[in-house]
Amino acid sequence: MADSSFPAGPRIAVVGGGAIGGYYGGRLAEHGHDVHFLLRSDFAQVRDHGLQIISPDGDAHLRVSCADRAEDIGPCDLVIIGIKATSNDALPALLPPLLHEGTLLLLLQNGLGGDEYLAGHFGAERVLGGLCFVCINRTAPGVIHHLAQGRISLGEFSGAPRDRTRQIAAMFQDSKVDCKVEPSLAAARWHKLVWNIPFNGLSVVAGGLDTAAILADAGLEKLVHELMTEVREGAERLGHTLPEHLADAMIANTRPMQAYKTSSLLDFEAGREVEIESIWGEPCRRAQAAGANVPRLEMLYELLRSVAAEKARSRCKE
Amino acid sequence: MADSSFPAGPRIAVVGGGAIGGYYGGRLAEHGHDVHFLLRSDFAQVRDHGLQIISPDGDAHLRVSCADRAEDIGPCDLVIIGIKATSNDALPALLPPLLHEGTLLLLLQNGLGGDEYLAGHFGAERVLGGLCFVCINRTAPGVIHHLAQGRISLGEFSGAPRDRTRQIAAMFQDSKVDCKVEPSLAAARWHKLVWNIPFNGLSVVAGGLDTAAILADAGLEKLVHELMTEVREGAERLGHTLPEHLADAMIANTRPMQAYKTSSLLDFEAGREVEIESIWGEPCRRAQAAGANVPRLEMLYELLRSVAAEKARSRCKE
Repeated sequence: MADSSFPAGPRIAVVGGGAIGGYYGGRLAEHGHDVHFLLRSDFAQVRDHGLQIISPDGDAHLRVSCADRAEDIGPCDLVIIGIKATSNDALPALLPPLLHEGTLLLLLQNGLGGDEYLAGHFGAERVLGGLCFVCINRTAPGVIHHLAQGRISLGEFSGAPRDRTRQIAAMFQDSKVDCKVEPSLAAARWHKLVWNIPFNGLSVVAGGLDTAAILADAGLEKLVHELMTEVREGAERLGHTLPEHLADAMIANTRPMQAYKTSSLLDFEAGREVEIESIWGEPCRRAQAAGANVPRLEMLYELLRSVAAEKARSRCKE
Repeated sequence: MADSSFPAGPRIAVVGGGAIGGYYGGRLAEHGHDVHFLLRSDFAQVRDHGLQIISPDGDAHLRVSCADRAEDIGPCDLVIIGIKATSNDALPALLPPLLHEGTLLLLLQNGLGGDEYLAGHFGAERVLGGLCFVCINRTAPGVIHHLAQGRISLGEFSGAPRDRTRQIAAMFQDSKVDCKVEPSLAAARWHKLVWNIPFNGLSVVAGGLDTAAILADAGLEKLVHELMTEVREGAERLGHTLPEHLADAMIANTRPMQAYKTSSLLDFEAGREVEIESIWGEPCRRAQAAGANVPRLEMLYELLRSVAAEKARSRCKE
């Protein structure tokens, strides 16, 4: 597949009708792109009533093409995957009808492991990854509330950015979505983990705290800093250089934010699965395999595993 | 105060009518000792209906001397303190009417800090400490259920055992209570912390687990071992030599125990205060001051502080 193979007027599938798929796929559809949504629980609602986006960047109520079977969409040039990492197991069975030889896969997901999983099943050459910096909720079937931010950081799984990477970024840019091309997808993933690992993790295991409550406690703030330092050390051992003083800068940037409940805490409280392996387990294992000393990260991972398992057990008993 | 000053037929006060004070004080009273209970919430019940012990070592229903004001008891030769560490602040105001110049104070409490607190207020010379290895509950006012074990490990705050230490131990031994004299109270306290810090701590922050559930999870078992190693290193840095392979031995001894809910977990679940500073905070600070590297202990302490504070806040909202 040559670099020039990403066509003008691409046929696009969006897998997952949650907040991420609905918002970014919706913005592309709104701006005239040929977008097809593969939906499950939201299918009937979106088919009959369309997709609704409520956003400070502009509301939209869109009639969109959607299907509840991949066969009804057929091969596309780009598949945007907006499901949670905990559902990645479904992809090998789900995606094949959407693929032709040159189909690109864009995985919009936090954490580590998903890119490699797609590469293993469908070939590394076609995999791109994206990190979404966005506050967004699916508040009802087919209804997406976009609250703030929205940037996608986009990179190639198998190396440096190419023409196609920039073409996809430009497509988002032309559709009201800020999109930045990353020189290294892996480094970008680790960079985001430096924030997500402490804040998402502590928000759950420290008793259900938002970001402001975490930083209001000097002991927890110190722990955030130490966790960030461990994650950074893991990244560096793996060859990913991150900005100097990253922990200090991230804490300073988080402090003036409004009290923010992390997505992991919202998932945990609602009884939904938390992306424990991709955000904590896989980073921990990779950092340790590279020789990094990450005792707090490992402990946080073990505690999250345990509290999530207990929560699931207590749910089953109800 | 000479070593020989602990009198035959001592006058004994017991402060605290919870499980510890009720059980050990009750055993002494049962065996003919001159015991006076200082009670608060259980006063009327014990005054009118006596103290009841239900135990595999023999039940007892005792008419005991009790009071709800220390002045009504007056000076004693030994004051046995069976309150939680979280209530130690009350002692400087509570104890003086019970003291004469030679009164000994025996603090039956886990963790660190209480001995020093008593020594600071009443003089180091009179302070002894004890660690109770016992499964025991106060199930109703004046009713103590003793389930298993019962040993007290007894030591002097200010140094090696003396005649009086052995005399007090003998008094317990003669009253159906196994009592061992410890060459070093501080080492005995650290020894017990090697177990309590991981098991009591993880039982709370890992999602409400009993000992069997903790050890059934390989990741948590590894964390138990690592925490035990950190606590041991803290003790060693402070000059307390603990047995070789202590972590392995304690885990091996805990595995065949019945699923056991730690007292900290019972306290936490019931909305009672957890002894966070004496079991985690003070050991962590002392280990760090001695140069030990205890990242997991520090993290456990911070998480416990936070979940307990959140629990207290949510209780206030109810």
